[in-house]
This record gives sequence, structure tokens and C-alpha cells, in this order.
Amino acid sequence: MRTIRSPQAMTVWSERLRREGVKIGLVPTMGALHDGHRTLIRSARLKSDALVVSIFVNPTQFAPTEDLAKYPRPIRKDRVLCKEAGVDVCFEPTVAAMYPEGFQTVVTVPSIARRWEGHTRPQHFSGVATVVTKLFGMVRPHIAVFGQKDYQQSALVRQLVKDLNLDVEILVRPTVRERDGLAMSSRNIYLSTEERRIAPILFHALEAGRRAIEAGLTEAESVQAIMHKVIAGAPMMEIEYLAVCDSRTLEPLMKIDRQAVLLGAIRLGSVRLLDNVLAGRKKR
Amino acid sequence: MRTIRSPQAMTVWSERLRREGVKIGLVPTMGALHDGHRTLIRSARLKSDALVVSIFVNPTQFAPTEDLAKYPRPIRKDRVLCKEAGVDVCFEPTVAAMYPEGFQTVVTVPSIARRWEGHTRPQHFSGVATVVTKLFGMVRPHIAVFGQKDYQQSALVRQLVKDLNLDVEILVRPTVRERDGLAMSSRNIYLSTEERRIAPILFHALEAGRRAIEAGLTEAESVQAIMHKVIAGAPMMEIEYLAVCDSRTLEPLMKIDRQAVLLGAIRLGSVRLLDNVLAGRKKR
Repeated sequence: MRTIRSPQAMTVWSERLRREGVKIGLVPTMGALHDGHRTLIRSARLKSDALVVSIFVNPTQFAPTEDLAKYPRPIRKDRVLCKEAGVDVCFEPTVAAMYPEGFQTVVTVPSIARRWEGHTRPQHFSGVATVVTKLFGMVRPHIAVFGQKDYQQSALVRQLVKDLNLDVEILVRPTVRERDGLAMSSRNIYLSTEERRIAPILFHALEAGRRAIEAGLTEAESVQAIMHKVIAGAPMMEIEYLAVCDSRTLEPLMKIDRQAVLLGAIRLGSVRLLDNVLAGRKKR
Repeated sequence: MRTIRSPQAMTVWSERLRREGVKIGLVPTMGALHDGHRTLIRSARLKSDALVVSIFVNPTQFAPTEDLAKYPRPIRKDRVLCKEAGVDVCFEPTVAAMYPEGFQTVVTVPSIARRWEGHTRPQHFSGVATVVTKLFGMVRPHIAVFGQKDYQQSALVRQLVKDLNLDVEILVRPTVRERDGLAMSSRNIYLSTEERRIAPILFHALEAGRRAIEAGLTEAESVQAIMHKVIAGAPMMEIEYLAVCDSRTLEPLMKIDRQAVLLGAIRLGSVRLLDNVLAGRKKR
């Protein structure tokens, strides 16, 4: 496995392989890799001939109040995981290479970014859209694999790629969970023992909503009430949102007459938990 | 010469040639081609193996009050010019193919777009930045050629390509002029005989500024006074701006201690004339 830090070197590597007809896969990450990432890497491995994992903790998608400085950066451990998973290139650009002096271009996907994560974190998704566009420009992949865990992000990337004609196939892989249902996340390490014990309740709430929809409930308001009731049993949890949305546009649904995504964000002590499940017709 | 209307077909054409090592050139235009475009096409021809001219009157870069509906669209004449100039593909996407339902992504280059053309036309440059990113995605060129006539646009495209790592080489060709100095423009056909007669005064004003700088004048204010004085001789002309700027950032200069660009926009009857000249050290 090679480690490449320079964006120019990354593009040279990719362009040479592209000209030879080699299919390049990319898994963009912020490092602190866990079994969820391992699943994305495996997926990308099966769909490509040469595999790049990018590790870049992107400052522009953190708000000033957020955990940029303390975000975990176990780079040696990450490289070992990548090597064992059959990654060909670990791409680790620096902040200075990503955003040199004079840098100013911003990519926004306004409708998808407006609600949910975008409502509480207004700059977050323009940071994501811009860095993803840049990574695609640097790595030039044929396919890129994202996790369903960040559902809104994956919907945004799909729309971005379509709108800017980026010619990258986007694959979204189901969320990998701990045995008790908690979605894997690099931030789970911040949970105390007690918080960790109750953290799966978010997933249980979403699952209760999904089961209600699949049993025939079509009023979003009733589904929301069911989800709220599950969380209400855990007084340490503060709900940011529990929403029933169109799975493509992420606009709230009143009547569940198409595939829905149930989105949830809750605060548990100092940690924000994020999760989602698809419900109803047409799996994507 | 082929005419391609579908973005998908355009990408297929380009990707096949790219894999064969063919160097693809693109000249993006809004049609109504004149000798200025012919010069861009010739330039691109010399630098590439396969040449695409895109013709797309981009609605998102016009303000609601502007001349989108009456913008000239002599498509048959344009195709003849392209064919004679050795163009391989005339790419003519429709508005519906460029902006399908649900389209929402916006690319902005905020610092460069803020002043001059961006000040009076606030949405103009996000329209340009977005459509150029899309055209690059569809055509996948190795090089793209722009005219210096739209100086701010060319500076914006350079910055955009650098910031989004688009791996397209941008060439900017000098403005082609009528014998009396008037910069060629698709909108010159709107000038009355009398307006046409005095239209070159904008260029003369910019040239007076350039000569003053090259004779050693370093105060931007004095250069501006010289340019204003030339235009003042033509009472039909209403100055929008006459500016002395850093040639890369387009920020106004106080002291001319580096390469400058002199930018001018004036209103002459119903027509807006735009022109610029570089002055001082380091030609790009």
C-alpha cells in the first residue's frame, strides 16, 4: 500500500491507471476508521480494480463550536486497517494542500442541505459538497462509496454528482451496527459507560417507526409520535429531530405514499448521535 | 463535424477518446460566433487533437431584466463557422438537459465574483461558475480556451479550476478587435450607426490608462482620472466602472506595483460595452 499526500501526485497516479482502463474506487473518510469503514472498503474493493481511501479531517465542515481539534486522528492504526483491507493508496492530503492561500470556491446543494443536519449546522454541507468535489477532482474515481449512516450527506453527494455531471458512480452502503443496534461512529468513543448503554435507543425508536410504516401506518405524525415515545423512556436524551422524509429530497412527508427515510438526531450528554432507517417501498 | 445534443453522448464520446490518449480541447460559447470565437477555436485546435465547441445560451447567468430572450441564436451560421474552423463536435445541450427537474447545485467563487460585473449582476458569476463546471464534467476536456474580453470570467474560471482540482488547463486568448479598436462581441449588433461610431472610445480610454502606467505612473487614482477624461469626451456614454485592479485577484489597486488589469464597463444607449487591457509587468 502506498501513502500519497500530494494532490498532484494523486491525480498523476489515477490518470495513468485510467488510461490503462483500470477502474478506480474511492472511499472518502475522516479517518478514525472502524468496522463501518471496513465494510465500505470491502464494497469498493469488489467494485473496482484499484482502491483509494482518503483520510482528511475537513475543517470546513466543522462549526467553530464543534470538535475539530479533538476529532480522533489515529493515523497509524488507520493505515494498518487500510493495508489489511487491501487498499492500494491511502490518500492523506494536508489542510494547506486542500485549501491553499486564495482558495475561495464553494459548492452548495441548497435544497437538500437546508434541513436536519443543515439546520443546526448551517455551513456543514457546503463544506462537505466542496471537499467531495475536490476529492473527486484529485482522485478521479469511477466509483465512490459512502455510508448510509450519514444519510443526508449521501443524498447530497448523489445530487451533487448528478447536477455537476461528475461521472462518478455513487454507492451507498447500509449502516454497520454494534450488536445492540448502535450505529458505528468515530464519535462513539466519547460516550460514557452509562451513555453507551442507552445509546441504541435512537435506533430502536427509528425501528419502531419503520415497523409501524410497514404495518400500514401512513400518517407521518403518528409515526413521529411512536418514535418520540420510545426516546421519552430515556430522560438523558434530548431530541434534536425525529423526521419522516422523502428518501430522495429529504423533504418532510405528511402522508407516507412513497419510500421514506426516518432521520434522527439526539443529544446524549456531550455526544450527538445520528441515525436513520429506510422504510416502505423501493429499496435503493 | 458531429452535432451532439445529449450530455451523456458527449461524455461517452470524450471518454472513449481520452482512453486512447487523445487530447481534447473545448471552447465554451453562447453561440452567435464571430471572429473572436474563431481565434479561440484556432488556438484550441493548435493545442488539442479533438476539438469541441459548446453552444449554450445559459439562462442562469442572465438577470431577469437582461436580454436572454433576444440573445442572438444563429445556430445554422454557427455550425458552418465551426465546421469551417475544423471543429470535431458542436455540443448543443438543451436547457432541460442542463437543468433537469430537481437541479439545485450552485458553484460560487465569492471573492473574484464580488466586484465589477458581479456588483451590478449579483447572480451572473454563480451561473457562469456552475455551467462551466458542468460543461467540464460533460465534455471532460484536457484544455479549455476562453477570451480575455470577459476578463473577470476568465479569472474566475482559473480560480474555480484550481480550487476544485478540475484538471483542465485554462488558456486565455487576447481580445480580438475591429479595425477601430472595438472589442468584438455578439452584442455589438445592437449598436446604432452613431453608437457604433463612438463605441471604440472605451478601448481608447483603457489604452490611455495603459500607456500612462507603462510611462511610469503608479497612482491608480491618476490613471482612473485619465481614463475618465477620455470617456467624458463622449457625452452619450454612461460609465459603470473604470477600474485599476490586481490582474489575478481583481481587487482594486491603490499603487500600481504589480501587473494590473484596467477594466471598463460603459452603457451606450441600450448596449453595455465591456473591455479590458493588461498593463505593466508580467504578461500572462
